[in-house]
Amino acid sequence: MTDRAVSLDRLSLNTATCKPYTLAQCVAAAKAGGLGAVGPWRDRVQEVGAETASKIIADAGLRTSSLCRGGFITARDDETATNALADNRLAIDEAATLGTSELVMVVGGLPAAYELMSMPHTPADATDKNLVAARQRVADRIAELVPYASDKGVRLALEPMHPLFTADRGVLTTLKQSLDIAADHPPDAVGVVVDTYHVWWDPDLQTDIARAGREGRISSYQICDWTLPLAASTLNSRGFPGDGFIDFPTITRWVVEAGYTGDIEVEIFNEDIWALPAQTTITTMAQRYSDLVLPYL
Amino acid sequence: MTDRAVSLDRLSLNTATCKPYTLAQCVAAAKAGGLGAVGPWRDRVQEVGAETASKIIADAGLRTSSLCRGGFITARDDETATNALADNRLAIDEAATLGTSELVMVVGGLPAAYELMSMPHTPADATDKNLVAARQRVADRIAELVPYASDKGVRLALEPMHPLFTADRGVLTTLKQSLDIAADHPPDAVGVVVDTYHVWWDPDLQTDIARAGREGRISSYQICDWTLPLAASTLNSRGFPGDGFIDFPTITRWVVEAGYTGDIEVEIFNEDIWALPAQTTITTMAQRYSDLVLPYL
Repeated sequence: MTDRAVSLDRLSLNTATCKPYTLAQCVAAAKAGGLGAVGPWRDRVQEVGAETASKIIADAGLRTSSLCRGGFITARDDETATNALADNRLAIDEAATLGTSELVMVVGGLPAAYELMSMPHTPADATDKNLVAARQRVADRIAELVPYASDKGVRLALEPMHPLFTADRGVLTTLKQSLDIAADHPPDAVGVVVDTYHVWWDPDLQTDIARAGREGRISSYQICDWTLPLAASTLNSRGFPGDGFIDFPTITRWVVEAGYTGDIEVEIFNEDIWALPAQTTITTMAQRYSDLVLPYL
Repeated sequence: MTDRAVSLDRLSLNTATCKPYTLAQCVAAAKAGGLGAVGPWRDRVQEVGAETASKIIADAGLRTSSLCRGGFITARDDETATNALADNRLAIDEAATLGTSELVMVVGGLPAAYELMSMPHTPADATDKNLVAARQRVADRIAELVPYASDKGVRLALEPMHPLFTADRGVLTTLKQSLDIAADHPPDAVGVVVDTYHVWWDPDLQTDIARAGREGRISSYQICDWTLPLAASTLNSRGFPGDGFIDFPTITRWVVEAGYTGDIEVEIFNEDIWALPAQTTITTMAQRYSDLVLPYL
């Protein structure tokens, strides 16, 4: 491999960063850019089927760093919960077919926000703001999914989300909380995602990254920046590393010190970036990675 | 006192909730609404002077639940830091004159965001995203202010802010972090603010409210709701209790169990609410307080 190929080998394109492009287009662009891996979203996998998706990635000589995403398991009613668990088992199957051990889990929000999440909901849901109970349902349903996932060689990678999203996207908020839920299961059954966007603000970040490493649970390291002002759609308010306020060298050092040697995904939700040609996006992310992350690996 | 007066006696109007109104107008409206206290902001105190402000509040028979706010103490350069400390000493004087023991501290953000905070800044500041160092400066400067504050009988009430604001408003993020900084000082010198808007998402909230109570450090309980979607100005995106996703009965029970018996401030930044007559705002907040907080006290 050339120096450039070596240097970008751990860099992975999460397909959400190039949202308008098919899996084949993302894979081709990642390959052309010298990246070592892709992290596909399920919609782009499902439109070709997991077998074909696996072949597209393997034929390009890339790894699948993770599959995004399972989750949305906070439902109160049995029918919605049963459907969610079935969909998560399908996601586990897809991850296994793709040959990735890591299924990223975005767990879902409060009953009072089911409507905002486009989940089935009742009038009783709309008044339920019980965060403690919603979090307990997450722990319970992760436990329900673990045997199936472990059987397939897939790890449920719990992704704590920025408290901006606690109500309407993910009641898992901190690495500590995620590790506490994971602690009931073996390290190869339940892991955690360190996504800079979601955890950069946490005063206990160094401590909890170290714990995650010590406990063998770092499923993924994802990089993306906190930019201001927030975009009108707060979900799509993320930036290239370097465009915002996150201290990537420091957090990267903590992740390295925790023993993480896996792929480093760039997952950015941003409408301006989605309007770019995929190759431009990949060139920029590779440059930022080379400046802000690679020197600290 | 009538039943209504008794029931609203612990309710306090933070003047930011009625931002267009003078202190005298806020006090008159709070008094007419049956509230027991006000929590003034410094701008409304300074426009009449602290002595007169104190008299306006006392003449209405109200208490001053806190003074908002000191802080913005994350400066890297000596001159800005010196100026900030001087301004905080002035705020301490004002709190003492007003007869409140609680000076709310919003500590300020990262150097890279000084421009967004309208703080003096240099090109070197603009690239400084060192959150760990900014937090250490907060701890150091609180320690510098403590002797002066204690001498005046004023407690520095550290306000952890929602991680939405970590970059550009407050690097203090959790109650735990605030309590850890406070731990270096006596309980009557440094306290913490429990503002539902800022801390509702915290998985350790019950534990840390209990700790704050046990350590005698709850300076203020403030109520305000997390509404979605966020307003275009994220600072002004807060709602009346009941309009958003926060579980007020549960958090109120935790605060009560922690032994807090002080005033309960309503502090809401919201342009729509600012457009209302003060009396309408106070009627609504009193109703929400009666529904969502009072039964759990």
